[in-house]
Amino acid sequence: MRWLLTLLAIGLVPMTILHAASDDTVEHVVLGIHGGIGLEKKDMTPDLDRQLRELLTAALHAGKAKLDAGGNSLDAVEAAIRLMEDSPLLNAGKGAVFTREGRNELDASIMDGRTKAAGAVAGVTVIKNPITAARAVMEKSKHVLLIGRGAEIFATKQGLDIVDPAYFWTEHRWQAIQEIWKQDAEQKAQPQSSVAPWKSKHIEYGTVGAVALDQAGNLAAGTSTGGMTGKLYGRVGDSPIISAGTYADNAAAAISCTGHGEFFIRYAVSHEIVSQMKYLKRSLKAAADDVINQQLKPAGGEGAAIGLDKSGKFDAAYNSEGLYRGCITKEGKVRVRLYEE
Amino acid sequence: MRWLLTLLAIGLVPMTILHAASDDTVEHVVLGIHGGIGLEKKDMTPDLDRQLRELLTAALHAGKAKLDAGGNSLDAVEAAIRLMEDSPLLNAGKGAVFTREGRNELDASIMDGRTKAAGAVAGVTVIKNPITAARAVMEKSKHVLLIGRGAEIFATKQGLDIVDPAYFWTEHRWQAIQEIWKQDAEQKAQPQSSVAPWKSKHIEYGTVGAVALDQAGNLAAGTSTGGMTGKLYGRVGDSPIISAGTYADNAAAAISCTGHGEFFIRYAVSHEIVSQMKYLKRSLKAAADDVINQQLKPAGGEGAAIGLDKSGKFDAAYNSEGLYRGCITKEGKVRVRLYEE
Repeated sequence: MRWLLTLLAIGLVPMTILHAASDDTVEHVVLGIHGGIGLEKKDMTPDLDRQLRELLTAALHAGKAKLDAGGNSLDAVEAAIRLMEDSPLLNAGKGAVFTREGRNELDASIMDGRTKAAGAVAGVTVIKNPITAARAVMEKSKHVLLIGRGAEIFATKQGLDIVDPAYFWTEHRWQAIQEIWKQDAEQKAQPQSSVAPWKSKHIEYGTVGAVALDQAGNLAAGTSTGGMTGKLYGRVGDSPIISAGTYADNAAAAISCTGHGEFFIRYAVSHEIVSQMKYLKRSLKAAADDVINQQLKPAGGEGAAIGLDKSGKFDAAYNSEGLYRGCITKEGKVRVRLYEE
Repeated sequence: MRWLLTLLAIGLVPMTILHAASDDTVEHVVLGIHGGIGLEKKDMTPDLDRQLRELLTAALHAGKAKLDAGGNSLDAVEAAIRLMEDSPLLNAGKGAVFTREGRNELDASIMDGRTKAAGAVAGVTVIKNPITAARAVMEKSKHVLLIGRGAEIFATKQGLDIVDPAYFWTEHRWQAIQEIWKQDAEQKAQPQSSVAPWKSKHIEYGTVGAVALDQAGNLAAGTSTGGMTGKLYGRVGDSPIISAGTYADNAAAAISCTGHGEFFIRYAVSHEIVSQMKYLKRSLKAAADDVINQQLKPAGGEGAAIGLDKSGKFDAAYNSEGLYRGCITKEGKVRVRLYEE
């Protein structure tokens, strides 16, 4: 950046270049969301582009409506994420990717920045809205993290919507797992062949998340996902892990992440951003940039974080080609982006 | 503390008082361990006291032997924890507590401070040594956290010791769950009676953990547990959560925690200690004391953390009555404590 500042100082670069690409800062925000890293730009179609922007806009309005009706930041986060979970377009709830065993195993978490209360579920297969189950764990149990069948029994007792696993099925995710199974079979048939180890054409980390700030000044964050396509062995990523995929602390910011979850767990990304803000007095933008671009990127960890600080400043950092993201201000102004724009 | 420093300065308090109770700092340490918060002192017997000290001492020697044979810090952590898992005295592996459903569901995690590589398993029921499974996840899979049946299939494929669930049974843990079931039944029989909500006579958070520093200067940490007696709904605590129960970063320290796991997840205790060391330049002792005594205690979170910094300084912080703990120096000097001593 130093050369750029130098060029700016001597007037050789118009200021607009700096703002053209990756400045995601927006002030007076009450709700920010993401829908994951998504497709490579070359695979994006005009129709899907439009549908995604409409979906993100609808999620922002759904969350904002809760705030306008006097709801708190948790209500806004839950409402925005539920709408994204219910859409087949994103990898959470309906539309979740399939595991290697041909199932949909969902993870979610939510956190209250005021009390540091938190709830999460992992590896659930029949709960329609995992984010609502995560909130029930936070508010209706003494626990933070419930997994698998136990989480499903708890959600059922709480009266949450329980669905047949087939509810989560979508044609495009089913095709994606067929492709992996086909490659698995080819590799087994030709053990010494030149068939390359399986590699997804485009790994979509289409996790969804939200961060909100309510009128009382309280922050909240939440994240929900179907995980990685073809995941094995009850693999759980960062989305249900408080401090990795989700963290909220009124003293700093609310954070939700998406990406290669293993890296986000190892680097405790959400909590690391909050720690740098609290202890290094860094801005949300500087802290998120440090973790996503200076720590994760050199380590090979692809992904992104969105955050909302206590002053209402929203920011996003990503080391991937794009990040489906958006935010809405107190006045109802919406901004949605899918790549650098 | 200021009044005490003042009294010290004017010579009214002998210096020894400061060192009598809770100074757990030891230098030149290569391995530190804990065996959980344990029993209230009034329930401790001379025989159990002796057995626990022997067990902790044996675990320290087992880990130290790995280091002396040229093993790294991960080898030492794994060896010390395996020995504690194999003992019926502590709440990890053999001797784990029972869930409300009468099962033993085990969690463990391990982390390499050099690479920030990590592995964890949660909710496993047939893996003899969960810490070894956690290490296999770290070294033999692309994942960090595997849960339930998937983790068990992975461990089986890796050739780890698989046992009948009955292996984990112990008489004293079985008696503890009988007591809870009896109280559950009494409450159901008299729904409007004066029977108090179930409360354990002594909640034993007998999680085990280890932190090590090898000759190459690399730190490692690990934690293993059976969780809380009578836990419900696939509840998972902090032990398998990287940043909560376990964290290791060569830039600061290796940390392992035990206690009321929900609080340790919400406060990301292990990562918070590391963050304060890195960003506030606090000592391990000061950072651990801040998190355990200034943050967790006022919030009602009972528990403890042990840590080993990159200079070989070991420390322990706990807001409970006791903490089974020990450490061994480079020269083989062992110190074991169960309460304030």
